[in-house]
Amino acid sequence: MQNDLVAALDIGGTKIAGALVDGQGRLLLRCQRPTPAQEDAETVMAAVTAVLGELAASPLWARATAVGIGSAGPVDAAAGTVSPVNVPGWRDFPLVPRVARATGGRPVTLVGDGVAMAAAEHWRGAARGCRNALCLVVSTGVGGGLVLDGRLRAGPTGNAGHIGHISVDLDGEPCPCGGRGCVERIASGPSIARRALADGWRPGPDGDASAAAVAASARAGDPVAAASYERAARALAAGIAATATLVEIETAVVGGGVAGAGEVLFAPLRRLLRSYATLSFVRRLTVVPALTGTDAGLIGAAAAASLGGRSETAAVAGGPS
Amino acid sequence: MQNDLVAALDIGGTKIAGALVDGQGRLLLRCQRPTPAQEDAETVMAAVTAVLGELAASPLWARATAVGIGSAGPVDAAAGTVSPVNVPGWRDFPLVPRVARATGGRPVTLVGDGVAMAAAEHWRGAARGCRNALCLVVSTGVGGGLVLDGRLRAGPTGNAGHIGHISVDLDGEPCPCGGRGCVERIASGPSIARRALADGWRPGPDGDASAAAVAASARAGDPVAAASYERAARALAAGIAATATLVEIETAVVGGGVAGAGEVLFAPLRRLLRSYATLSFVRRLTVVPALTGTDAGLIGAAAAASLGGRSETAAVAGGPS
Repeated sequence: MQNDLVAALDIGGTKIAGALVDGQGRLLLRCQRPTPAQEDAETVMAAVTAVLGELAASPLWARATAVGIGSAGPVDAAAGTVSPVNVPGWRDFPLVPRVARATGGRPVTLVGDGVAMAAAEHWRGAARGCRNALCLVVSTGVGGGLVLDGRLRAGPTGNAGHIGHISVDLDGEPCPCGGRGCVERIASGPSIARRALADGWRPGPDGDASAAAVAASARAGDPVAAASYERAARALAAGIAATATLVEIETAVVGGGVAGAGEVLFAPLRRLLRSYATLSFVRRLTVVPALTGTDAGLIGAAAAASLGGRSETAAVAGGPS
Repeated sequence: MQNDLVAALDIGGTKIAGALVDGQGRLLLRCQRPTPAQEDAETVMAAVTAVLGELAASPLWARATAVGIGSAGPVDAAAGTVSPVNVPGWRDFPLVPRVARATGGRPVTLVGDGVAMAAAEHWRGAARGCRNALCLVVSTGVGGGLVLDGRLRAGPTGNAGHIGHISVDLDGEPCPCGGRGCVERIASGPSIARRALADGWRPGPDGDASAAAVAASARAGDPVAAASYERAARALAAGIAATATLVEIETAVVGGGVAGAGEVLFAPLRRLLRSYATLSFVRRLTVVPALTGTDAGLIGAAAAASLGGRSETAAVAGGPS
């Protein structure tokens, strides 16, 4: 029997997923629980423990030598704590030592969910083989992670690549983060829907006022719906170009629910990128859709944990198993 | 006799400086020529050769084992070429092989001038001991360089950290680079002066309409002059915060002529940084003035060349001396 598996956790505001992941990024066992997001800290931790218990009940568990966690942020990988915006009971919650204890002292690696997605895309997705890439999740929020010089760069606290909260409009709308004109404030799904509604778009008979419904209208030729996606694409283009200009990336991988709009998003995004990525060394930058889908968080958590070198600075707690 | 010196070149639109730099960052010999910026490629190269000849005439020359070049950009360290905006005769000019030939086959390292400044500040200046820092030059243009995980990150082409051409105002004024609302377009010295004049500021009897004169007026209480610096500070704050959010830096070091305005720039910059650097992992970010002054380019070119590990990806041509 090989000792070749990683126990991966993907912790979000809606669900807590777990898996045993092999060296090829395959999920040999997968389980999940709803996140009791409004409950106290121990109730949320109990859900994590339940997921881990389900994994540990498998005969495969003995082959798991490490634990990787991708969590909604902010995280603090240096301290081993998490403070997910949508889980108010967890503030500086010591997730890494708690998981290490619950898994018999296995080493635990923690990264933010955007970093996990980047790890997944670099390992098994559209950023495979890239030396330098930004991977974005455009969904209810906008997150991301970076691959630099062929390795995941999680940053000292595991939050690097957090493109959703860079300002591309310094006089723009206030953002709940405290900033102004953040990429997320312009390009997230709720922002796309809100802007379309404000500009006169109306949902169909089913009442669906989501960004996906706006995308469907745009595909059907509605100019207001298309304009809202164009605006989101402009913010993403400015943010991706800024990243490329700052750290030299060759590829931007875009995933998350909003990327499901397909060409409604990607066509203006590719076009507008040419307006913002202007210097010679960023002109060849390409944008591609993500490939790892809904399991990105689990695959990326496993990658961050198992492939030591891929995650240079993320926190590791616990001893060898 | 030790083989412990680096021959450093700092190539700008105004001057070409050279030095022999020791392992402590001291300039044992320094010389410079004006850049014949409007002449043909070979005339500009002849000025470089003349500077190298002056260094080579020294008995110290035999101790120089490597050559480091910091050049006005864009550069292409992977190709070993430079295309400085202000030196039109040099487009994809093969500076690295030419300098290697002129120096007896010594290994040559090329980085952009912003990267060189960052290398200098990391080695001998305000970023000393920092694991993660952005160093900016705010002058006629705005450039920069990055230190990540304790090492200079020049990027594959030697241009990383180019903060002057990230957009912080996606609907803003067109920039000569082709973008819009670039940091340089708002925060450079000429931009500060232009905005002050447009808003009604007038130079004193000496007719000095420079950013330094605007700073003097601001110190004397002129609100229009102060407002122009405040606007520059806002753009720099948004750009520095974006960098911190993307790659997790702990310090931003600001040098260049505009930094000479002192608190006229730094006071609003520190205040406004709090408005844009909002996430938990960037809140402790500090801004400090640069320390290496006018020799930053030479010191940094030497650092990039001599301290191999500090410059992971910059081009190296030529064999061992």
